[in-house]
Amino acid sequence: MDIADWRKKIDGLDEQIVSLLSERAKAATEIGAIKQRTNASIYEPDREQAVYSHVKQSNPGPLTEAELIVIYERIMDVMRSLQRRTPQS
Amino acid sequence: MDIADWRKKIDGLDEQIVSLLSERAKAATEIGAIKQRTNASIYEPDREQAVYSHVKQSNPGPLTEAELIVIYERIMDVMRSLQRRTPQS
Repeated sequence: MDIADWRKKIDGLDEQIVSLLSERAKAATEIGAIKQRTNASIYEPDREQAVYSHVKQSNPGPLTEAELIVIYERIMDVMRSLQRRTPQS
Repeated sequence: MDIADWRKKIDGLDEQIVSLLSERAKAATEIGAIKQRTNASIYEPDREQAVYSHVKQSNPGPLTEAELIVIYERIMDVMRSLQRRTPQS
């Protein structure tokens, strides 16, 4: 496979990653609405640590745990701000 | 569905996201090896812009384009550093 072939493969993977991140965002929005109704805090450090542990356990490589967590910290930042901007449903 | 149900759903999504990020990382490693053999530059701004365009086109919401790109900038940073640290294969 040459670079163009690998890039085609990456484009296909990106479509699936975007789709899953969007599903994750929808679920986060639902949780955000429940939290708003119950006046619960958006930021829950224990849950975030549980997410990072689960992500590390699921890691088959070649990314290091640290690399994967760096990506997930960004994902969690965005999900938190999404929960804050989403109106109560 | 209560918060615990949504979190179970998110855990399942995270397993799939980690798996796809890992496949993406393997493909990036292959590209990195080809670039090393041909003395090509790891950083290719035109390709990165193409990735961001493709990601934006694939976005079904509820994340904004800006939120998705913020996540993808982190993914691209990590992939670039992976390419730099991977020995020539």
